[in-house]
Amino acid sequence: MTTRHVFFVSDGTGITAETLGNTLLTQFEGMDFTKSSLPFISTTDKARVTADYINHVASTGGPRPLVFSTTVSDGVRAVLRNCNALFIDLFDTYIHGLEAELGVAPTHAQGRAHSANTRRYDARIEAINYALEHDDGQSVRELGKAELILIAPSRCGKTPTSLYLAMQHGIFATNFPLLDEDLEKPALPKTLLGHESKLFGVTSEPERLSQVRNERRPGSRYASIAQCSYELRQAETLYRKQQIPFVNSANMSIEEMAATVLHEKGLKR
Amino acid sequence: MTTRHVFFVSDGTGITAETLGNTLLTQFEGMDFTKSSLPFISTTDKARVTADYINHVASTGGPRPLVFSTTVSDGVRAVLRNCNALFIDLFDTYIHGLEAELGVAPTHAQGRAHSANTRRYDARIEAINYALEHDDGQSVRELGKAELILIAPSRCGKTPTSLYLAMQHGIFATNFPLLDEDLEKPALPKTLLGHESKLFGVTSEPERLSQVRNERRPGSRYASIAQCSYELRQAETLYRKQQIPFVNSANMSIEEMAATVLHEKGLKR
Repeated sequence: MTTRHVFFVSDGTGITAETLGNTLLTQFEGMDFTKSSLPFISTTDKARVTADYINHVASTGGPRPLVFSTTVSDGVRAVLRNCNALFIDLFDTYIHGLEAELGVAPTHAQGRAHSANTRRYDARIEAINYALEHDDGQSVRELGKAELILIAPSRCGKTPTSLYLAMQHGIFATNFPLLDEDLEKPALPKTLLGHESKLFGVTSEPERLSQVRNERRPGSRYASIAQCSYELRQAETLYRKQQIPFVNSANMSIEEMAATVLHEKGLKR
Repeated sequence: MTTRHVFFVSDGTGITAETLGNTLLTQFEGMDFTKSSLPFISTTDKARVTADYINHVASTGGPRPLVFSTTVSDGVRAVLRNCNALFIDLFDTYIHGLEAELGVAPTHAQGRAHSANTRRYDARIEAINYALEHDDGQSVRELGKAELILIAPSRCGKTPTSLYLAMQHGIFATNFPLLDEDLEKPALPKTLLGHESKLFGVTSEPERLSQVRNERRPGSRYASIAQCSYELRQAETLYRKQQIPFVNSANMSIEEMAATVLHEKGLKR
């Protein structure tokens, strides 16, 4: 199949252009796309180099490239728009409607979408450090500070979800493993008593959990379907008994897990 | 100032709707927005509840709400579109142009943008675990596996950048502190010899570094401007001497740091 080249062009990190473009492209199946991010295109000189590059790719044959652009400079966009490509321009599409609605002129300031903000940066770093220090029940020193405590048997996806919530949303998220001794009864680890309102349970499918555990400990009892199945069953019994909300992570991305937890716990992003 | 309500409505996580909307809104300064994410709106029943909510907010006075939607279901959008709000519809705006260009009908499959993909999930988890195990030079067991090794004096932002690269891009990123004994000479820590091509340096501004260190160790020599200034100067001398590319993190977000490192090292996202 001939590949179609897709360029994400931005005057900043490229995150918005990639998110926009990738979201739209997930609607088209069975296509072969070759994707390139071209961040920090903030001057007409850089735009000219970029346009030459896109035109060069277009000239090598195959279908016309797609360009998803979030650049805000009129000069930069004037150069890019003349490429031999389908030019999809976030700024131009929406900014005039928003300007009319808000009654304020856009600043045309570049690279603003994911730029530095000391207060936000510090909050995220604090949350990341908290998540790292309290990961997997390593520390219970400041459990009271947690906004959210994920609980689950080992390898259900607690760590990436807590880290994601800390990193993206500055949420003080931590996680705590349910060990054999907790699952046998089943009962909450004593350390968590008094923190019930912050708990959120994670479960999975035995086959998926077994696969993940086998990566770490191939052929172990820990990774066996029987053991995974037992632990998940006991965990779910515990969640129900204690009325702890829970989610099955087996077919979810990190982003979906995070969005689900935020949504169900009513945590502000 | 009257606040204007902004809703990010999605049939999935809401990430694309938020990214799109927030990017556009950064262009308008001096406005007061109250933002709400409404994820997982995937049925017309949920759309009706959502529309009622938006209409209720609109009816309480103040300017008309803004709705950024990435929902793909025609039924869901038909309900939302009738709200008393400015409706900004990513799907409708671009999908027809893309369909014409690609010659393929969109699937209308919901929640695809940030949905599960086992291969991608596993790659991210592996990279996150790697970043956690090798954070701050904790382990050098598998340094050979690293695609990137960030080096810097303490608290310049190595850890969040490595974690972000692992989380978002599945990159095997690790980081290694430059200690007094390295900075005095200045010379690379012995462990890093042979890994020069993977190194990327981070620097900062003395005032900013001092502020960050003071959070951890208020009033310490470690946090003093003099010490921060000395360490950053020595680190920069080391980077230049060893021809290690480097970036100043003082005025950058985590996303900008990550995008800069990827870009400069030519690492594939």
